[in-house]
Amino acid sequence: MDIKLLSSEIKRKKSFLCLGLDSQMDKIPSHLLKEKDPLFIFNKMLIDSLSHLIVAVKINTAFYESHGSEGWISLEKTINYLNSKFPNIFTIADAKRGDIGNTSDNYAKAFFKKLSFDSITVSPYMGRDSIEPFLKYKNKHTILLALTSNKGSDDFQFLNTQKTKLFEEVIIKSKSWKGSENLMYVVGATKSNHIKSVRKLIPESFILVPGVGAQGGSISDVYKNGANNNVGILINSSRSILFASNGEDFITKSLKVAASYQKEMENLLISHK
Amino acid sequence: MDIKLLSSEIKRKKSFLCLGLDSQMDKIPSHLLKEKDPLFIFNKMLIDSLSHLIVAVKINTAFYESHGSEGWISLEKTINYLNSKFPNIFTIADAKRGDIGNTSDNYAKAFFKKLSFDSITVSPYMGRDSIEPFLKYKNKHTILLALTSNKGSDDFQFLNTQKTKLFEEVIIKSKSWKGSENLMYVVGATKSNHIKSVRKLIPESFILVPGVGAQGGSISDVYKNGANNNVGILINSSRSILFASNGEDFITKSLKVAASYQKEMENLLISHK
Repeated sequence: MDIKLLSSEIKRKKSFLCLGLDSQMDKIPSHLLKEKDPLFIFNKMLIDSLSHLIVAVKINTAFYESHGSEGWISLEKTINYLNSKFPNIFTIADAKRGDIGNTSDNYAKAFFKKLSFDSITVSPYMGRDSIEPFLKYKNKHTILLALTSNKGSDDFQFLNTQKTKLFEEVIIKSKSWKGSENLMYVVGATKSNHIKSVRKLIPESFILVPGVGAQGGSISDVYKNGANNNVGILINSSRSILFASNGEDFITKSLKVAASYQKEMENLLISHK
Repeated sequence: MDIKLLSSEIKRKKSFLCLGLDSQMDKIPSHLLKEKDPLFIFNKMLIDSLSHLIVAVKINTAFYESHGSEGWISLEKTINYLNSKFPNIFTIADAKRGDIGNTSDNYAKAFFKKLSFDSITVSPYMGRDSIEPFLKYKNKHTILLALTSNKGSDDFQFLNTQKTKLFEEVIIKSKSWKGSENLMYVVGATKSNHIKSVRKLIPESFILVPGVGAQGGSISDVYKNGANNNVGILINSSRSILFASNGEDFITKSLKVAASYQKEMENLLISHK
């Protein structure tokens, strides 16, 4: 997807909400378990009901791989459904991949060609040649882990290097990589105090922000510190929307949570025009 | 697998060779393409023919994911075949996973429970709570990327932190993680000059060494700098064995390469007893 379309969808829907499909078999409503493919049905029902409130969908591969090839089939059906029915929703494979060149080539093929995701999350640890194979694809986007939302992000991401902190070094260096115009960055909502300085390093790039909801981050803090003229942020919510209820009323409950996030975003978009 | 069994197999087979199944559809012998599942048949033939020369098999997930759920089925068949027919071969999911806690939980489930791999490679960038979910499993091993074999490893792994280099910081800090006795480490063969100092940091742990063959590392340098009393190293070779020939004689040619590596290892094991 061309990034301009994502930006115009954000304005049209008055939302920068990303729905994270961390769909976990033991947490989805039990009446769906009698379906042939409960994960896909759960995803499909949520996508159909929330499509007017969200601009992106993030599929976390772990929750599908834990069911082996059957789970991989549910993942395929979900992305195919999105691509055929909602081509204007930006899709993210939250896969955190990254390996030596010829291996990353194959990951890029897996997620950009075989599954036709618009984007994938990648880990920077292995450096330039582990990421550039993803950056070759036109209108495909590679979302680099910069500052993650979890506690363990303190372990290495905040290490002082000779110049700066590791996560800043990652961002600065990544800008010199071939195809860096296709980069986006993960910065956790729990680190909203750092989003302002990250935004200075990458004024134009989209920032994917996980960690709102179950992890405790705030939409308004993220927006105030991280938005650029094109909004330029996607805030992901997974568990607090997905598992708002595990009863037959789950769509109503999920809708309510997603709508409240969208409303908060709409208010921010209006008041900070 | 208990690590003692791996060590005793190394002594019995006089080999610390790991076969890397980076099985790529466009590089496998063309006469196999008429098979229903060419990747699995290719893997099975290689495993059957080389089992006396190798102590470990590393399956690189990228090469299977690039074929979608069908590729994932080939991967499942390969690991199931290994587990049923060669339970004494140590199996590695070369997956380079790592994410926030509840996601890593699901990756651990995917590779340790659903697929019954003995071990998985993980990326350290997200820190302690992204790795500990893997370390909970008894007799399962988590192989942390420390110093990788690719050129891009210069980008971040060699950054000077206040105390030391990032890859050393990763190793030092990882030793304090809960379950760290289940850790192994990746150190690329192309970095054999650093293996000696890494070995000092982790005298007991196994080191998985990629980068021999196509990437140019030397078995003898790695052994001399990295072996401990239990050998404690696994050297992986993928492309130079797998694609020794793409004709009908591929098994003979692959055998020849693997046998030459095993012989070199045997000589090292004898002369450095």
